[in-house]
Amino acid sequence: MTKRNLLTTIGMLAVVSAFAQKEYPSRAPMTPAMSEYWTPQPPIVTPGKAPAEAIGAPSDAIILFDGKDLSQWENSKGQAAGWTVHDGVFTVKKGTGDIRTKQKFNDFQLHLEWCIPEGIEGTNQARGNSGVFLQGIYEIQILDNYENETYVNGQAGSIYKQTPPLVNAMNKPGVWNTFDIIYTAPTFKKDGTYRTPPRVTVLQNGVLLQNNTTILGTTPYVGFPEVVQHGDGPIALQDHGDPSAPISFRNIWIREL
Amino acid sequence: MTKRNLLTTIGMLAVVSAFAQKEYPSRAPMTPAMSEYWTPQPPIVTPGKAPAEAIGAPSDAIILFDGKDLSQWENSKGQAAGWTVHDGVFTVKKGTGDIRTKQKFNDFQLHLEWCIPEGIEGTNQARGNSGVFLQGIYEIQILDNYENETYVNGQAGSIYKQTPPLVNAMNKPGVWNTFDIIYTAPTFKKDGTYRTPPRVTVLQNGVLLQNNTTILGTTPYVGFPEVVQHGDGPIALQDHGDPSAPISFRNIWIREL
Amino acid sequence: MTKRNLLTTIGMLAVVSAFAQKEYPSRAPMTPAMSEYWTPQPPIVTPGKAPAEAIGAPSDAIILFDGKDLSQWENSKGQAAGWTVHDGVFTVKKGTGDIRTKQKFNDFQLHLEWCIPEGIEGTNQARGNSGVFLQGIYEIQILDNYENETYVNGQAGSIYKQTPPLVNAMNKPGVWNTFDIIYTAPTFKKDGTYRTPPRVTVLQNGVLLQNNTTILGTTPYVGFPEVVQHGDGPIALQDHGDPSAPISFRNIWIREL
Amino acid sequence: MTKRNLLTTIGMLAVVSAFAQKEYPSRAPMTPAMSEYWTPQPPIVTPGKAPAEAIGAPSDAIILFDGKDLSQWENSKGQAAGWTVHDGVFTVKKGTGDIRTKQKFNDFQLHLEWCIPEGIEGTNQARGNSGVFLQGIYEIQILDNYENETYVNGQAGSIYKQTPPLVNAMNKPGVWNTFDIIYTAPTFKKDGTYRTPPRVTVLQNGVLLQNNTTILGTTPYVGFPEVVQHGDGPIALQDHGDPSAPISFRNIWIREL
Repeated sequence: MTKRNLLTTIGMLAVVSAFAQKEYPSRAPMTPAMSEYWTPQPPIVTPGKAPAEAIGAPSDAIILFDGKDLSQWENSKGQAAGWTVHDGVFTVKKGTGDIRTKQKFNDFQLHLEWCIPEGIEGTNQARGNSGVFLQGIYEIQILDNYENETYVNGQAGSIYKQTPPLVNAMNKPGVWNTFDIIYTAPTFKKDGTYRTPPRVTVLQNGVLLQNNTTILGTTPYVGFPEVVQHGDGPIALQDHGDPSAPISFRNIWIREL
Repeated sequence: MTKRNLLTTIGMLAVVSAFAQKEYPSRAPMTPAMSEYWTPQPPIVTPGKAPAEAIGAPSDAIILFDGKDLSQWENSKGQAAGWTVHDGVFTVKKGTGDIRTKQKFNDFQLHLEWCIPEGIEGTNQARGNSGVFLQGIYEIQILDNYENETYVNGQAGSIYKQTPPLVNAMNKPGVWNTFDIIYTAPTFKKDGTYRTPPRVTVLQNGVLLQNNTTILGTTPYVGFPEVVQHGDGPIALQDHGDPSAPISFRNIWIREL
Repeated sequence: MTKRNLLTTIGMLAVVSAFAQKEYPSRAPMTPAMSEYWTPQPPIVTPGKAPAEAIGAPSDAIILFDGKDLSQWENSKGQAAGWTVHDGVFTVKKGTGDIRTKQKFNDFQLHLEWCIPEGIEGTNQARGNSGVFLQGIYEIQILDNYENETYVNGQAGSIYKQTPPLVNAMNKPGVWNTFDIIYTAPTFKKDGTYRTPPRVTVLQNGVLLQNNTTILGTTPYVGFPEVVQHGDGPIALQDHGDPSAPISFRNIWIREL
Repeated sequence: MTKRNLLTTIGMLAVVSAFAQKEYPSRAPMTPAMSEYWTPQPPIVTPGKAPAEAIGAPSDAIILFDGKDLSQWENSKGQAAGWTVHDGVFTVKKGTGDIRTKQKFNDFQLHLEWCIPEGIEGTNQARGNSGVFLQGIYEIQILDNYENETYVNGQAGSIYKQTPPLVNAMNKPGVWNTFDIIYTAPTFKKDGTYRTPPRVTVLQNGVLLQNNTTILGTTPYVGFPEVVQHGDGPIALQDHGDPSAPISFRNIWIREL
């Protein structure tokens, strides 16, 4: 069975066995800072100036947001997505929760664009924090780390709390960033562990951040990655709910591979 | 030792052993058509309309062509590259031979753009044929296969005579195509065979053609891929020398990984 | 659909598309010698002396031959296997055809033992030729290449006509050889090509011959490997049908992974 | 630079950058239990009965212990190894510290045999605890987990504190266990992180425990795996120093790949 409530899971579940018949010790509880590391900071790369006009979607893409409405999206209860559509973009509406696509996917190529508002305040992770969850489970971090240092496995384009990006290729607040993500879904053995792990390639603003990187498991805020069996899943976007200003998205499309 | 004259090698060398002390049979000679296959034809995808203005190079890129001159390039004898620079692009000059970068590379991210001239004639492989050689050895095919069928492992974005592209994402003649190539160089065992094979990801016009595909060896016109030991190598571009009109290149940059 | 008649396929089928709607050229026909190469010959390693007594099967193994009968096996028509059981072993009976397990497998660890009869005659491939087919499709070569040179991708422990063994670790005729094979089955994309290719590790007499080597496709006598979609498959053993003396097998077990 | 004192490193170093120029937060300290998990317990497999006589070493193997002396070994200070040779085996001598081969290796196939003494006492990790360190860095756990439960990523054949074995294939105390280990060393990028990670296959008593498993980094008792740049390294064996009875080793050989 797939586990659909993963987005709300916090903390350290051990790998789950359907066959566990007796009590075993749990892992000792951890704190968030235990899975954060700060060095080496990825080199800073200034991306090439993006053209004014966005690149259009290929003919075989599923358009997930075309500037008009959130009809392809829902909240985590399966209700209408409550984020705000305006000016051809949509913006996180704090407190309405994460949103996800109604459609589920296996392997895919995903394009999305996101913008940190000019004049944003806050530092470290409290600055434009969001994320895109692949198959609803594995978070690629979204954050403003333009002249804002944070732990490296929490930078934009990191596999959150796992693998930092190769470089820091941020545009500054007010300028749109692009993510191009190539994702290969995992396959599973009968015991629920990975037979082949998920893998991901990420480019931000055309610059390589992840090169077919192995994803080790879930991307929890606290503790180790977990391996949890699942099938196809949605693309989800995070309402991080912190006091830094909301971020916006546009031009989202996906191609099934 | 690296083998620098590979670009001119034609035909079937067996894997070379420095230790071969006696005579063994050679592989039987082959014809080109033996390593060409035609089905299944990759699905045709119309790329999104490219913006008028090109995406600029990131700050850590080495600019291989900036529209002005071929100072970063040479011919296969190490002399000045004889191709024609005009209007911010350069064009294959038939009979002057392949050109290659003076600098050599290991792992890299490469961006280049190429254009098949409008009004091009010819069919199958005799239509805008060129190629980009990774480390001077492994050819990613360049060809006009817009409404022009050919063997699938000879289409644009194929690892030539090995692996076809996932889709056919050509722009029509007169429109520029982009290649974004992420390349991981091989490592070798003491006996000269691959310890880890080369791998490549290719996007054409933003659409995925190769996803960390294993390169099996050289990409000869005739016969099987060969494994030949080598070190860093240049980016090379092919003067195919056939009667179809010459193709043009622009906006070439590379980032060492 | 899986293709069950692969064992009898000879020659060059292109990758099969269910959607092919028009006629495309076929690959030009090849000869067997075109896919055979002879250098570098793998180093010769004398295996350690095997203990007189065989290692027993682990408790979770399926015993495919315990010295008594061929009840786990059938011929390629699904009839009783016609090979000869005697003295706790079984021996190829020329002209009765290949045999295969009734049970089908996905990922597995396989142990088998085989013996070339003392006094065998013939040279090159005509000397104790047989093979074990993984999932009924991918042949790991069995041959007497003890002081018998042949093309390297046709030696014992080669992925036939693809990848030679790392070394030649043959016992001489009359002495039993062991194969320990760890096999990871492929997964497929919707278009029938590999999503993840098959992989195999082989030890002969405790010496490593293949180390998680990628299998490129089928292992035909003539032509290139083909990619053909399939599901679980049997372990099959080859009746090569040539004039060299028949070989024997014993102590065969398999563990599903 | 390689780091040679890793065996004595305890605790959580972040990935080390030679270029770190300012102070960054450290990871919060952890306790050992945070990186231990107990479920699912690997299935128990009874290995086949081993032959009385050991399999001999292949002709190209380097004999690391032939039953006579520890001339191939030294302690961590480069002095004579202080463990006890007797009856064709050698036994951990508590308090003399780890021992390691004088020779260093890159990729290899390693065979070793180890025996937990009959009548051993203690439970969990305090029962025949030792380990074999690949390149002196990555620990494959040695422990008596025959009818002795412990955290799964600390069982015999686990990559210590990382990846549990596929099954529990222990012989009981007093019976020799074999390890056959196939190891592929990592390669590194310029920044000291893995370009290709280390990988390992392990068989215990002929049963597969690890199948080309990726090693994520060092295997510390406390905290996350670390990535530390290194070159060739020795095979090292652990003097765990706990009150459970000392374990013995015999028949150790290695083949360079």
